[in-house]
Amino acid sequence: MEELARALIGCGAIRFGKFTLASGASSDYYVDIKRASTDPQVLRLMGAGLAAQLADADRIAGMELGAVPLAAAAALAADKPFIMVRKQAKGYGTDSQLEGPHAAGEKVVVVEDVTTSGGSSLDAVRILRAAGLQVIGVVTVVDRESGAAEAFAAADVPFKALVAASDLLAMNRAD
Amino acid sequence: MEELARALIGCGAIRFGKFTLASGASSDYYVDIKRASTDPQVLRLMGAGLAAQLADADRIAGMELGAVPLAAAAALAADKPFIMVRKQAKGYGTDSQLEGPHAAGEKVVVVEDVTTSGGSSLDAVRILRAAGLQVIGVVTVVDRESGAAEAFAAADVPFKALVAASDLLAMNRAD
Repeated sequence: MEELARALIGCGAIRFGKFTLASGASSDYYVDIKRASTDPQVLRLMGAGLAAQLADADRIAGMELGAVPLAAAAALAADKPFIMVRKQAKGYGTDSQLEGPHAAGEKVVVVEDVTTSGGSSLDAVRILRAAGLQVIGVVTVVDRESGAAEAFAAADVPFKALVAASDLLAMNRAD
Repeated sequence: MEELARALIGCGAIRFGKFTLASGASSDYYVDIKRASTDPQVLRLMGAGLAAQLADADRIAGMELGAVPLAAAAALAADKPFIMVRKQAKGYGTDSQLEGPHAAGEKVVVVEDVTTSGGSSLDAVRILRAAGLQVIGVVTVVDRESGAAEAFAAADVPFKALVAASDLLAMNRAD
């Protein structure tokens, strides 16, 4: 998805340089994905890119807060319904962490904005599986290639990134 | 917006009958708006209806969690950027409750899924004003007509509902 990668760089969501991450590790690039997901042109591209990976899904799922606009854009592009996954149950009304209709046995694909270790998406996978849904994949817009692929393989969930960190760094070197 | 009202009823987001609300009050109808906002066809209608009210806006704003898919759909329909408003600051990184680029002086319209007293949207208005943004309106999909119009008038914010509770009840009686 070179077009998407260029759009992410163009809107300022990916910046190159020397950055220190919250973990203390250093990085050659910085991702501010909400700069992309709140930009209608880039959001449309992300929605279309995600939708292309959803052929076998009955529903889409996105973890609050970052993945919710992506799930909505993918739902509009693929004409499929989505579920918003809450990090914590609301504690009143329905106890469920899943907002939006769903039924046990349905095939769901989790969409994510950025994956690093994959922890947040794995939480979504666990919550969806606990509700009886069949998680047939995780698709992320940007994978930082820091353990997510291995974590999803261990959890037996197919994983796909629209843009990988190594692609971005290669594009930056080529420019 | 009779088409939108019929779509809300058709997808099961509005149900008629005798309901007891969390406040203890009784109601002749029940709104499960997330049933609508996670349905791509109804979300598209809501996005288009909201977009038609955004001509003068530089940006759209939506409070987490319910208004975020609406803000995304309206952004795609209107080709304008949006801001996600967090109920609470994250406590690390940027302290802001506003996710997505924004600048003081910009004109913003708050979109909302359901208004009752208007409290949640008024919180968004306060947060946006504190960041220097000019809130030029609040547009809700469904207004329960339980004080929101008066509250927005008192806060000096133009307010518009795509569908009012009284319209829904009149449609139900006519069917």
